[in-house]
Amino acid sequence: MSISEITQKLLAAKEDKGLTFAELALRMQRNEVWIASVIYRQASASPEEALVLVEALGLDADYASYLTKYPIKGSDSIVPTDPFIYRFYEIMQVYGLALKNVVQEKFGDGIMSAIDFTLDVSKEEDRLGDRVKIVMSGKFLPYKKW
Amino acid sequence: MSISEITQKLLAAKEDKGLTFAELALRMQRNEVWIASVIYRQASASPEEALVLVEALGLDADYASYLTKYPIKGSDSIVPTDPFIYRFYEIMQVYGLALKNVVQEKFGDGIMSAIDFTLDVSKEEDRLGDRVKIVMSGKFLPYKKW
Amino acid sequence: MSISEITQKLLAAKEDKGLTFAELALRMQRNEVWIASVIYRQASASPEEALVLVEALGLDADYASYLTKYPIKGSDSIVPTDPFIYRFYEIMQVYGLALKNVVQEKFGDGIMSAIDFTLDVSKEEDRLGDRVKIVMSGKFLPYKKW
Amino acid sequence: MSISEITQKLLAAKEDKGLTFAELALRMQRNEVWIASVIYRQASASPEEALVLVEALGLDADYASYLTKYPIKGSDSIVPTDPFIYRFYEIMQVYGLALKNVVQEKFGDGIMSAIDFTLDVSKEEDRLGDRVKIVMSGKFLPYKKW
Amino acid sequence: MSISEITQKLLAAKEDKGLTFAELALRMQRNEVWIASVIYRQASASPEEALVLVEALGLDADYASYLTKYPIKGSDSIVPTDPFIYRFYEIMQVYGLALKNVVQEKFGDGIMSAIDFTLDVSKEEDRLGDRVKIVMSGKFLPYKKW
Amino acid sequence: MSISEITQKLLAAKEDKGLTFAELALRMQRNEVWIASVIYRQASASPEEALVLVEALGLDADYASYLTKYPIKGSDSIVPTDPFIYRFYEIMQVYGLALKNVVQEKFGDGIMSAIDFTLDVSKEEDRLGDRVKIVMSGKFLPYKKW
Amino acid sequence: MSISEITQKLLAAKEDKGLTFAELALRMQRNEVWIASVIYRQASASPEEALVLVEALGLDADYASYLTKYPIKGSDSIVPTDPFIYRFYEIMQVYGLALKNVVQEKFGDGIMSAIDFTLDVSKEEDRLGDRVKIVMSGKFLPYKKW
Amino acid sequence: MSISEITQKLLAAKEDKGLTFAELALRMQRNEVWIASVIYRQASASPEEALVLVEALGLDADYASYLTKYPIKGSDSIVPTDPFIYRFYEIMQVYGLALKNVVQEKFGDGIMSAIDFTLDVSKEEDRLGDRVKIVMSGKFLPYKKW
Amino acid sequence: MSISEITQKLLAAKEDKGLTFAELALRMQRNEVWIASVIYRQASASPEEALVLVEALGLDADYASYLTKYPIKGSDSIVPTDPFIYRFYEIMQVYGLALKNVVQEKFGDGIMSAIDFTLDVSKEEDRLGDRVKIVMSGKFLPYKKW
Amino acid sequence: MSISEITQKLLAAKEDKGLTFAELALRMQRNEVWIASVIYRQASASPEEALVLVEALGLDADYASYLTKYPIKGSDSIVPTDPFIYRFYEIMQVYGLALKNVVQEKFGDGIMSAIDFTLDVSKEEDRLGDRVKIVMSGKFLPYKKW
Repeated sequence: MSISEITQKLLAAKEDKGLTFAELALRMQRNEVWIASVIYRQASASPEEALVLVEALGLDADYASYLTKYPIKGSDSIVPTDPFIYRFYEIMQVYGLALKNVVQEKFGDGIMSAIDFTLDVSKEEDRLGDRVKIVMSGKFLPYKKW
Repeated sequence: MSISEITQKLLAAKEDKGLTFAELALRMQRNEVWIASVIYRQASASPEEALVLVEALGLDADYASYLTKYPIKGSDSIVPTDPFIYRFYEIMQVYGLALKNVVQEKFGDGIMSAIDFTLDVSKEEDRLGDRVKIVMSGKFLPYKKW
Repeated sequence: MSISEITQKLLAAKEDKGLTFAELALRMQRNEVWIASVIYRQASASPEEALVLVEALGLDADYASYLTKYPIKGSDSIVPTDPFIYRFYEIMQVYGLALKNVVQEKFGDGIMSAIDFTLDVSKEEDRLGDRVKIVMSGKFLPYKKW
Repeated sequence: MSISEITQKLLAAKEDKGLTFAELALRMQRNEVWIASVIYRQASASPEEALVLVEALGLDADYASYLTKYPIKGSDSIVPTDPFIYRFYEIMQVYGLALKNVVQEKFGDGIMSAIDFTLDVSKEEDRLGDRVKIVMSGKFLPYKKW
Repeated sequence: MSISEITQKLLAAKEDKGLTFAELALRMQRNEVWIASVIYRQASASPEEALVLVEALGLDADYASYLTKYPIKGSDSIVPTDPFIYRFYEIMQVYGLALKNVVQEKFGDGIMSAIDFTLDVSKEEDRLGDRVKIVMSGKFLPYKKW
Repeated sequence: MSISEITQKLLAAKEDKGLTFAELALRMQRNEVWIASVIYRQASASPEEALVLVEALGLDADYASYLTKYPIKGSDSIVPTDPFIYRFYEIMQVYGLALKNVVQEKFGDGIMSAIDFTLDVSKEEDRLGDRVKIVMSGKFLPYKKW
Repeated sequence: MSISEITQKLLAAKEDKGLTFAELALRMQRNEVWIASVIYRQASASPEEALVLVEALGLDADYASYLTKYPIKGSDSIVPTDPFIYRFYEIMQVYGLALKNVVQEKFGDGIMSAIDFTLDVSKEEDRLGDRVKIVMSGKFLPYKKW
Repeated sequence: MSISEITQKLLAAKEDKGLTFAELALRMQRNEVWIASVIYRQASASPEEALVLVEALGLDADYASYLTKYPIKGSDSIVPTDPFIYRFYEIMQVYGLALKNVVQEKFGDGIMSAIDFTLDVSKEEDRLGDRVKIVMSGKFLPYKKW
Repeated sequence: MSISEITQKLLAAKEDKGLTFAELALRMQRNEVWIASVIYRQASASPEEALVLVEALGLDADYASYLTKYPIKGSDSIVPTDPFIYRFYEIMQVYGLALKNVVQEKFGDGIMSAIDFTLDVSKEEDRLGDRVKIVMSGKFLPYKKW
Repeated sequence: MSISEITQKLLAAKEDKGLTFAELALRMQRNEVWIASVIYRQASASPEEALVLVEALGLDADYASYLTKYPIKGSDSIVPTDPFIYRFYEIMQVYGLALKNVVQEKFGDGIMSAIDFTLDVSKEEDRLGDRVKIVMSGKFLPYKKW
């Protein structure tokens, strides 16, 4: 999974500034996952958003224009080998069919949009070990008949 | 993605009885996604749970023993072609790296467990179209050093 | 690409009756491609639609229930070897990036839905050889920011 | 999906000039998808067309010769991960067999050419959300018997 | 590479009758490769052709209808392991780019059709070992501009 | 499919000189497909042949030594995406088994050599559109028993 | 790697008779590896050879005809998982390029035939552990120029 | 199959010196296949061996240290496309199962080691065309029971 | 991952008898992992061992002969989807190179045998959660030079 | 399997200093496999650990910051070709299912963690050839029900 030079530059600047995604989220009034996906060139920012981000990172305004482009999304690895990312592949393998049935029983034949979609991460403190809480919210799209 | 005969039998019984996963959830006091994954042979029930489920479906108690086995999990298709399931693959492709960075910034180097893990589905009513809400909660596992 | 027994049964009945998809379309007041995709178990019909279809094919009403199920969609072959189907793979390979740019220049960052989507086939008569005309219409879905 | 340097140069020039594909289409009297596929090195222009394009982009005439070459077409990724492009893969997976049957019922055994082929994109305004309209027109090629 | 039951039946009948493809070619006034591809369900015969073939093989007229269907073509194996078939894969790997350049230099940007296409096999006697001669003739299809 | 620098150099020189493969064939008294495959580093020339070729292209004699090396042959892409090259893959997928049976019926168990092999391309003029004629001649190699 | 029913029948008969491949080799005056490959349907026997083999195994003469067919060779698994067979894949991976260079330095540009080819297995007794000795002999085939 | 810079340097030096692997074998008192695999970085030499090799090639002693490293072995291509190397893949595909059975009948359940293993190449002169003779000798390793 | 009928029979018998692998281990004086791999047809038993096992399971002596065969080992799935098995794939992906370097620094260039190899599983009780302890012991095999 | 520049720098420094992983282990009071995986960028060190390591290697303190990053883990090769690493793939293929059953019989449905996990390598001296001993200890994670 190769990371583009621009992304590396932005991440290095973020590290130099000692900024977290949460802090950038406050500054931009956007969710931290979305901001991270702009930096990883998986989402596009508006010119204003790009400027705020680039300034927060202490970089030249020139960088902003890169972040407004509509990126070619996704990665090269068909099955991810990174254990963190793989767990999401595993969840899809193990629970995909169950999810499909439960959701479609509630909504009919269709899908959860991954475009009209938000993703929120938070920490659940837990005596037995803290937990990662991920909330996905995607518009249900029913199959059109024609 | 081939569905085993047992699963087909259970799903047919569920349909004949006109039961939803939500109703089974009430009966079993378990989440509907978990119940669906037991039926799809991705999770194992205790003998008691299996019996309740099999009875709810109006099937022979003999079926219960199948549901207590520890299944070989996952499916055959490396990249799922079903659009519903594919969207989860896409989420991993597009947001995987962003998620990794946001979570690890909050928790350190490690992963969200897909084993000590729960998955909850609900419907968010929305004027612009109802939304699927999925809540994942997985224990954070930090890499052990040794 | 294995065709399920139900599909084979329905296709054989269609052939025995000497019916075309166009005739079924008239009978059902639905597009012929959609009807074909119901028969190939890639789309689900309502109970009423299923009944009309099954009756048109001269089959038992029992068959109708199969057609109302929400199928696991797609096929097994990652790259299709059938030349007819492959050409659509080729169009995606050759024109995918160009399409992405032209559409996103007109609409912004987002996708053409393949769910809120229709597909229409017709014959264009042409002195130099008749042409296949395919019209796709998919709702544009802009990426949500959050 | 790596984009060649030439393509990057042309796209940058297009952006600097603030030109859209639609404007280039007017200038060249060619469809915007075809122009985009010339720029992405999936189609070849005549020397005259190349010159007009290069001049429109404000680039050296030297660039024109690249655009007249017959490119090695297609991309490296077997299954595209970009969501926009993937939807065309999905359409092929889900509707490929249905399309094959409907078209071949109308035309006989053969294919829709992807070479003697045109592709047109337009925006359909729609109260429920604008739609992408794609019109494909490919010559039907019947299998030759010999 | 699984061979369908129908094909096996036809091949067994051909063997029982002691008929060669060359003899079937004489009987049907069609090329032997084309006849073999009908039997292997890669090409479709007209009802008359199918009847002649089925009769030549001493089989029930019922078999004829199978041979008029428009088959799903190609095989399952992405890279063929059979050495005979692999050599054609190798020829494509080794000479594909050279062929592309030589043909496109003669004809312009386009392809050799594999649909409006014939394939002829003969034996060249040679003192140093007989040779297989394969003649392919495919219509050149220039890329359409639009 | 990456093209080596040497090949690019040779092709650029050929273009600068305005030479066709056919003209190089006359100069070298070799078939144009073979010459193209030497340039694409899929075949090796003798020192004399290499010198003639390099001189014809107006390049330094130093280039000749590269062309005498025994190259690592073939390309990286398992299934070619270029439509011209793909058609040969398709021919193998669709007609491979038919060819195997027809050839082996004429010759016995064995293969057509892809090494003791020649490949000839010509243009067949045709009122309905010119045709590409490809003649392959490969020594038949019977399986040795031992 | 699925073994055909015929092969299973022959292997079972061989086991029932308590015959080794070496004993069959003596009976047939053929190498044991070749005999095994006939049984595994990777090589074809003459009618006489097939009869001798089938009789040696105490089976019906009817079985002989299967063994004279020209099989579709190779297996389904691209990378073999059986450790015995994998070692040959490993040898190719590790020593393939070295072998290519050493052989081609001795013989020129070409290949070792895998068709005009024999394979002999024997046991080398060795104080440090017996060794498997495999002798391959394949005709060198130089690339033809044309 | 990318060749490392070091390997290219060594091969170029070998060519400049006009040395064959056979001559290097004499100089090093090692088999030529082993020497080639050291150069292709598939085997590691002792410091003394590395020095002799580097000196024979007229290179700086500094190069020796590279040849003593324990390389990451194998190549990137799952199925080799080079015809010379592919033939070994083919031999494994076609004769793998036969070899397994013949060897294991002689030795019991186990494998031929590819580590405690030697590989010898020689030329067999033959009136019908010279032959490549390859002798493999690998220690038989019986499966341990525990 | 398909489980053969024999294996299913043996596992069902084991379950009916209420026997654990540990109990079978006691009865056979062999490690439980090895016994499980005999049952899953990845290892072969001696006739005596097979008889003891089959008797312990209360099955016909006829079953014993199956267990003495030398199985074709491994599974069909290139990347395992079952989370339990996947973790071993992950360990190889993440720690493979580190292991290679540490082991080879201690032993020289070579491998850990997976044939002259044992595998032991035990439970480590731990206040923070019990641990799985796996001990692998494989003979080091140094690369032979020749 | 490409090794990053940083890793190459660190390994070169380690070689220049003539240090073994065992010596680094002593210096850092950490296991040598863990240290190697930090160097191969598969694990992350604390700033203190990174400093100790970098100093031990005689490198600039600047290098330390790289080693504290949370790396994208795993490699590019789906099936490893290096024989040392492949053996672990083979162990998973051959013993995976047996391990799963034995462990889950002892612990219930769940997995051995590869995150809360340690890996220890040692040399077992043995008259018949030294052995590699690998001890894995991973926390057992039972599937959560919800």
